[in-house]
Amino acid sequence: MIGFAMTNTAALGVPTFGRDLAFGTNPLAFAAPAGTAGAFVLDMATTVVTRGKVEVYDRSGKALPDGWAVDDQGRSATDPARILHNLTYQLGGGILPLGGIGELFGGHKGYGLAVMVDILCGVLSGGGFGPDIADTPGSSARVSHFFGAIRVDTFRDPLAFRADMDRLLTSLRTQQPAEGADRVYFAGLKEAESEAECERLGVPLPLSVYERLLETSRHCGVEPPARRD
Amino acid sequence: MIGFAMTNTAALGVPTFGRDLAFGTNPLAFAAPAGTAGAFVLDMATTVVTRGKVEVYDRSGKALPDGWAVDDQGRSATDPARILHNLTYQLGGGILPLGGIGELFGGHKGYGLAVMVDILCGVLSGGGFGPDIADTPGSSARVSHFFGAIRVDTFRDPLAFRADMDRLLTSLRTQQPAEGADRVYFAGLKEAESEAECERLGVPLPLSVYERLLETSRHCGVEPPARRD
Repeated sequence: MIGFAMTNTAALGVPTFGRDLAFGTNPLAFAAPAGTAGAFVLDMATTVVTRGKVEVYDRSGKALPDGWAVDDQGRSATDPARILHNLTYQLGGGILPLGGIGELFGGHKGYGLAVMVDILCGVLSGGGFGPDIADTPGSSARVSHFFGAIRVDTFRDPLAFRADMDRLLTSLRTQQPAEGADRVYFAGLKEAESEAECERLGVPLPLSVYERLLETSRHCGVEPPARRD
Repeated sequence: MIGFAMTNTAALGVPTFGRDLAFGTNPLAFAAPAGTAGAFVLDMATTVVTRGKVEVYDRSGKALPDGWAVDDQGRSATDPARILHNLTYQLGGGILPLGGIGELFGGHKGYGLAVMVDILCGVLSGGGFGPDIADTPGSSARVSHFFGAIRVDTFRDPLAFRADMDRLLTSLRTQQPAEGADRVYFAGLKEAESEAECERLGVPLPLSVYERLLETSRHCGVEPPARRD
């Protein structure tokens, strides 16, 4: 089968030509199986970045690239601390849709995709949508989901489908890379390779997280797995 | 009902970290009805722009914005004439996916959406996909389509759905605009307003097109509609 999964999330995104919060990162996932080439697994926020990405820039004291966020007047903004502050207290401004500010690079397309996810998740189910969804301490966020599946065998022989998927994914993976780039991926390939590596070598954790897990295992009387450096 | 329509098109798009053609503008359309607020109608290329947009810049002798296209080495390219030439003769380079070059602004997301459309149109139907689809003179382009519909009444009362859609679309349309912007739209609103205006005033045509139509009507012995300036 081919699968779809979407969710709406707490509002942090600003629409094209706007200045106030109207939608969440509203991720959209789409997966289709191949044969030997793995699977095509797209899992993307419809905003240009997630809040977590802005937090990473904040912690490392770096300015955001121009085109990720706007201030309370809807002007391009690059100070991550200020944007996070404005998001937390809903003072205006926020993260831009995929395609960035205005229409020049297709920001109205990312905005459209974010609202599409909101309609399929929130409106179709009779749940919350738009700025109604907020990370308010002490109350639930009221997010909604959309799941869908397409049976490949209602369209064509699944083995022929998988063979064509192999041909498509292999042709993408073996494209000649751009100057300065190592290789060309397809959606889900990086993650599949990282999963295989984690199964072989274990899951890499920051030392601070590992130490907190050690503490928890002592507390629960559970033998922790050995640390590998 | 909620509707989906997609098509794959002649290859002119370059994948993230690549330099060669791998997919078309691969547009994705999604429409959902509202009540009095109209309808949400998203109809977008999954590339940052279409070939037509590059041709407009070429005719007006303007350089492309950085982030629309790459050259045959996969480097950012801004000369529209050269890009169109390279596209026509498949010399390498082409138009970038929504999100632009590399991953910084989410180019890998637009690339993923373009391939998603290719899978749903070309692979699922057993048609052509990827660079197999080309505008080759004298042969057909072998494009494929995907159409889907969701019956709203299998999820909830359609009138309640329409009422929530009205609430969503109205809240977007009445958002306070960014500094320097006139208003906030939702997908399909500009087009609906333009359609209404055309019904009231007639369809605006370039004079050269009107004159060609006059010639055709004389040739066919058909009374042409009066010209309004």
